Amino acid sequence: MLIWALYDVSDDKQRNHVAKVLLNAGLERVQYSVFVGDLDPNRFDELVIAAERIVEEQDSVYFFPQCRPDFDRMRIVGAGFDAKRVASELLTDFF
Amino acid sequence: MLIWALYDVSDDKQRNHVAKVLLNAGLERVQYSVFVGDLDPNRFDELVIAAERIVEEQDSVYFFPQCRPDFDRMRIVGAGFDAKRVASELLTDFF
Repeated sequence: MLIWALYDVSDDKQRNHVAKVLLNAGLERVQYSVFVGDLDPNRFDELVIAAERIVEEQDSVYFFPQCRPDFDRMRIVGAGFDAKRVASELLTDFF
Repeated sequence: MLIWALYDVSDDKQRNHVAKVLLNAGLERVQYSVFVGDLDPNRFDELVIAAERIVEEQDSVYFFPQCRPDFDRMRIVGAGFDAKRVASELLTDFF
């Protein structure tokens, strides 16, 4: 399933650690703090558990599963605009 | 429809302006840079246009419409965890 991951992590080291975990799980980075990919439900659960081990209480990582109709309705304003195009290119199997 | 809005805007004044526009559209702030609300499609379109007028190319605002099944599959790690609870409390009509 299509998963968007966005984080707000203040500590540099922890942020890099989270980024590495997201990339290792197979997500692609489409903006500095935004990742997207196609994960099966088990892999998604594992990724969430891995993130829970790293992220401190004051920080956060959002994981948004997204169905095709919601992808089509999604809007990105500004630099992030490319993220939607990139996602549709990356996730050819999904689309 | 349920809409999540997340932004990454570097300039303080512009960021405050975007926040004001999101709040005026009826979204609630659930974390520093995360908003959620129930908007009809016309209001959503108007909000996107308003954001496009403010946001510079290097910044971004993500608008994620979310269906109920995707809300249930969404995972938030860290401080943001409350955001999901808050959303379900705010959006009683949606749920």
